[in-house]
Amino acid sequence: MGVRVGIVGFRGYSGAELVRILERHPHAEPVPMEHRGDSGGACPAAVPCSPEAVKDQQLAVVFLATPAEASLELAPTMLDAGARVIDMSGAFRLGTPERYARWYKTTHTQPNWLAEAVYGLPEFCRSRIPQAKLVANPGCYPTAANLALKPLLEAGVIDRAAGIVCDAKSGVSGAGRKPSLKTSFCEVTENFSAYSILHHRHVPEVLMTAGLEEHEFSFTAQLIPIHRGILETIYFRGKNVKSAEDLLAIYCERYASEPFLRIHATGSIPDIHAVARTNFCDIGVVYDGASGRAVVVSAIDNLTKGAAGMAVQNMNLMLGLPETEGLL
Amino acid sequence: MGVRVGIVGFRGYSGAELVRILERHPHAEPVPMEHRGDSGGACPAAVPCSPEAVKDQQLAVVFLATPAEASLELAPTMLDAGARVIDMSGAFRLGTPERYARWYKTTHTQPNWLAEAVYGLPEFCRSRIPQAKLVANPGCYPTAANLALKPLLEAGVIDRAAGIVCDAKSGVSGAGRKPSLKTSFCEVTENFSAYSILHHRHVPEVLMTAGLEEHEFSFTAQLIPIHRGILETIYFRGKNVKSAEDLLAIYCERYASEPFLRIHATGSIPDIHAVARTNFCDIGVVYDGASGRAVVVSAIDNLTKGAAGMAVQNMNLMLGLPETEGLL
Amino acid sequence: MGVRVGIVGFRGYSGAELVRILERHPHAEPVPMEHRGDSGGACPAAVPCSPEAVKDQQLAVVFLATPAEASLELAPTMLDAGARVIDMSGAFRLGTPERYARWYKTTHTQPNWLAEAVYGLPEFCRSRIPQAKLVANPGCYPTAANLALKPLLEAGVIDRAAGIVCDAKSGVSGAGRKPSLKTSFCEVTENFSAYSILHHRHVPEVLMTAGLEEHEFSFTAQLIPIHRGILETIYFRGKNVKSAEDLLAIYCERYASEPFLRIHATGSIPDIHAVARTNFCDIGVVYDGASGRAVVVSAIDNLTKGAAGMAVQNMNLMLGLPETEGLL
Amino acid sequence: MGVRVGIVGFRGYSGAELVRILERHPHAEPVPMEHRGDSGGACPAAVPCSPEAVKDQQLAVVFLATPAEASLELAPTMLDAGARVIDMSGAFRLGTPERYARWYKTTHTQPNWLAEAVYGLPEFCRSRIPQAKLVANPGCYPTAANLALKPLLEAGVIDRAAGIVCDAKSGVSGAGRKPSLKTSFCEVTENFSAYSILHHRHVPEVLMTAGLEEHEFSFTAQLIPIHRGILETIYFRGKNVKSAEDLLAIYCERYASEPFLRIHATGSIPDIHAVARTNFCDIGVVYDGASGRAVVVSAIDNLTKGAAGMAVQNMNLMLGLPETEGLL
Repeated sequence: MGVRVGIVGFRGYSGAELVRILERHPHAEPVPMEHRGDSGGACPAAVPCSPEAVKDQQLAVVFLATPAEASLELAPTMLDAGARVIDMSGAFRLGTPERYARWYKTTHTQPNWLAEAVYGLPEFCRSRIPQAKLVANPGCYPTAANLALKPLLEAGVIDRAAGIVCDAKSGVSGAGRKPSLKTSFCEVTENFSAYSILHHRHVPEVLMTAGLEEHEFSFTAQLIPIHRGILETIYFRGKNVKSAEDLLAIYCERYASEPFLRIHATGSIPDIHAVARTNFCDIGVVYDGASGRAVVVSAIDNLTKGAAGMAVQNMNLMLGLPETEGLL
Repeated sequence: MGVRVGIVGFRGYSGAELVRILERHPHAEPVPMEHRGDSGGACPAAVPCSPEAVKDQQLAVVFLATPAEASLELAPTMLDAGARVIDMSGAFRLGTPERYARWYKTTHTQPNWLAEAVYGLPEFCRSRIPQAKLVANPGCYPTAANLALKPLLEAGVIDRAAGIVCDAKSGVSGAGRKPSLKTSFCEVTENFSAYSILHHRHVPEVLMTAGLEEHEFSFTAQLIPIHRGILETIYFRGKNVKSAEDLLAIYCERYASEPFLRIHATGSIPDIHAVARTNFCDIGVVYDGASGRAVVVSAIDNLTKGAAGMAVQNMNLMLGLPETEGLL
Repeated sequence: MGVRVGIVGFRGYSGAELVRILERHPHAEPVPMEHRGDSGGACPAAVPCSPEAVKDQQLAVVFLATPAEASLELAPTMLDAGARVIDMSGAFRLGTPERYARWYKTTHTQPNWLAEAVYGLPEFCRSRIPQAKLVANPGCYPTAANLALKPLLEAGVIDRAAGIVCDAKSGVSGAGRKPSLKTSFCEVTENFSAYSILHHRHVPEVLMTAGLEEHEFSFTAQLIPIHRGILETIYFRGKNVKSAEDLLAIYCERYASEPFLRIHATGSIPDIHAVARTNFCDIGVVYDGASGRAVVVSAIDNLTKGAAGMAVQNMNLMLGLPETEGLL
Repeated sequence: MGVRVGIVGFRGYSGAELVRILERHPHAEPVPMEHRGDSGGACPAAVPCSPEAVKDQQLAVVFLATPAEASLELAPTMLDAGARVIDMSGAFRLGTPERYARWYKTTHTQPNWLAEAVYGLPEFCRSRIPQAKLVANPGCYPTAANLALKPLLEAGVIDRAAGIVCDAKSGVSGAGRKPSLKTSFCEVTENFSAYSILHHRHVPEVLMTAGLEEHEFSFTAQLIPIHRGILETIYFRGKNVKSAEDLLAIYCERYASEPFLRIHATGSIPDIHAVARTNFCDIGVVYDGASGRAVVVSAIDNLTKGAAGMAVQNMNLMLGLPETEGLL
């Protein structure tokens, strides 16, 4: 019998992916939690999203697959009731109320919990996760970007002064399940469009984690007419680096013991099919030694490594389970 | 009764689009020409692709919607038979045999015609087209890039030293009609993939037309799971420019009398739906004055403005017809 | 200068298609009419949907591209103000209040206009349309079914006792532009689903026009993950008929002077690509003489022949213009 | 350590699905076998498709995910070398050389093995599979049809004289991985088309298994622009049956202990999303008691229950393993 874990927002795309993963997890027992405002068919198995339910159901962890506004309200409640919380919204990712106010255009109502939250990117924050009460599960776009950029920035092979471009593309599930004209079939099929150019809410997660200044980083989000998957094409100028192999060697060394990173050999470039429905992040590189032009392609599934898979990876770390449990 | 014009390669996607446009053109009468090696159902209306047919059919212009190898052989034949030629392949675009050899990895067999060919981008080469015997119709990717970049480069508002990134995405028809695994439905649907990173054959057309050095320009081609349309997201650092409005003003002035350029107002970004099945190129801009980060989005239909529509625009110029005839 | 015609619901998919067709129409001048409850961006060119606007704008015809409830209210108002009305909803198609009440589950509030309305299927009701004040433009599914079935039923070659099956598939635009989970991209892509089996509101239009009893006709509507287009596969047992050619001959004779009907030769079957963005209805037949099993495939574009194109065809008839004006 | 099983045709869509399933199977160890004529990248792990390899690799079972012509040649070779064979082509499904000659338009070269082969539809042929040397894995379309029709035919509730219609739709992977114009992205996207009307090779599998005469059964195959999944809409007249519940009760009783059949409650209809990437067959019913019109909807994943999943189900039976092993 496994650890009981609650899921708020289980009808959304990330929440449903979480249920799918946890149902196959050998050591977790998912409990759907009904939150007022949820729409969708009845779910007889659901318990109310309340402090009482946390205790009655003996929930060790509660996942919040909810919008930031709901998470701001629910996280403290669930934490006070004794559960540890993995929040999949942007509510607790940005460290300071000032940064949150700037990018989310509203005041943060839980600054203490914001300060205490641990950013749940295991590849770079693994040590702090096992003891965390509140984990801020990373955004989908930042995950693909940070996993591609941070090893190279740490190795000092990117000419930051020349600027970094991250051209990001996502499947439509990234916009959530709530119906809108923007995500209607007829508006999306046979189309491709850009949005939130330079101003996407996910930008500060890259700046904070990769250690970049805003003026060094140009980011565009774009909608692909597919269900799930993210591909980011990242451009920069190399520094002290001669070949694609040099860059690949940095990744291979940094990620040698990472279970969810796959580095492509020279000449091979990731695509979305290879990562769909997996928790992998695939990375490939093209480099022109003469000019220093570098292109890195990073691909993940936005619902798995970009959301629910990462959340389970964090849960495994919090519960002292093998990190890959339920994810391979 | 209109001018008779031949179409070689009328079964391909660009060729079929050409037929579709010309059938509605008030002053042209399309004649399909059957080229050995063509596959597809019988076309009783087709004449052989021969010098005799050029004369018998009184063809003023012959469109070659054929691969570069076929165009290298057919263009001189059609020209010698008295027709003017609009070639839609890359055979005659690159000006010198050396450049062709480098990017197409093979020797150019018609250096004289290569030297004489006129690059058919009316917005920047209009004066030379009316007298041209052989027009090299531009590539689809370079058209979207050149129309976005050249006015700004001419105005000196791009910091070339910092490099320009062009992240290009195309519908699958850009790869032609010949079946291949790469363009099979099951490989493309729910996928997104990059190819020819930094090394695409279309790169030199941008370098030549926009007047850039290769080391200044990073280009990636990518496949969107849609039938037709190109969207390019272009990144650079601004120079002597304060706002998006400054950049838009340059476009608006340069393109004031261009019938096929539409410049979006600040805050509005082009998408593929708006240009599909049209000869328009839509351009929009986002700019961060503090850092100089600029993002320009340029959208066309790869089969129309990127191929057949542009070819008809060139034909109109060659025949002294209104440039927009049959294209609005 | 053309006849001025109003369009209510111009932001919906059918309404936008109507605008697109009328903008190219040589003898009509479309005027968008703003109806309370419309959502979407501002349209400065729009006039209010009011009796005054009908007079001020001298509107000869008003198209209602609105839901049945709105049409029930707007049609009498526009008619009383002196315009003729082409209603694209189901409000005035069913002839009697009883039939309407049964299939639309609500009381018809305009029984007099219902009785007076002319069903706008020109191929079978052409004589009554020129004088009609109120034309009920046919539903998309019934149009494809009636054009396929009625000539054969009139010729007496269908064994009605054995029953007729109509398996219908439609693109998503048929469900309208209003966002809903059912038409969200992620719910539709890579899916295929049936709905309203045996009970679709469009069924009575087939029964009335083709002259069938409900028990003789089995109808299923299904959603294809495409933007536009309808394909219906119709099954029955032949009577007094030996071959596919016999059936095709009936169509060819009946539709000899119809501009929008295309009958496929034996062995050739229509698909949606061939009719998309056209006002054609394509029909093909397979027949097994030994057993009498017949399969007829009928394809249209739901937004054109199934809605806006048909509406313009009706307008042309009402205004005494050539029936194909603006539609070829 | 598991039973070693060979896979010929592992690069095709069905073969790749087989590898995917078997890699997670706790008791099987898949061995890719390289067959001359295969195209695709090198697979270092592959062994030759030869009698020697069967022995050297100690292969208990060989799966043939190959076209019928290849299977006709390979099955006897693998069988003679001592392996048991599960053939996923149509080569050994039709029982007699006469039937094969009629539907496959060619002579059967292995009539003895044809006679000995067991049709691998466990829900109806389970008893013969454990001892079978050669299992003919069923076609994808017949599986969805037989699972829907056979219980009702056995119960005598279908009026066979009135005829049965099976309108079938499949994702593009059903056509195999070999590139062709018909399965090219641009030909399929935004399209829907019918093929092999009344004459599909899969028809005899339904006639044989369900016990129908050809004149009683009308079948159309159609291509949906999706990767994987089949939905069949089946029409007939009920006999001695009053309601949908009566039909559902027959299914529920017949399939009470079947692990892969899911019967929908009244009012609920299967779709493709729910069965994609699973080995389930979902069935739903609409019935009009007054007229006897019945519509049954049956959905499977053509690559799983319609091919590789069914093949593993058969393998489990042949090896005495739990039938659901590796499939839930």
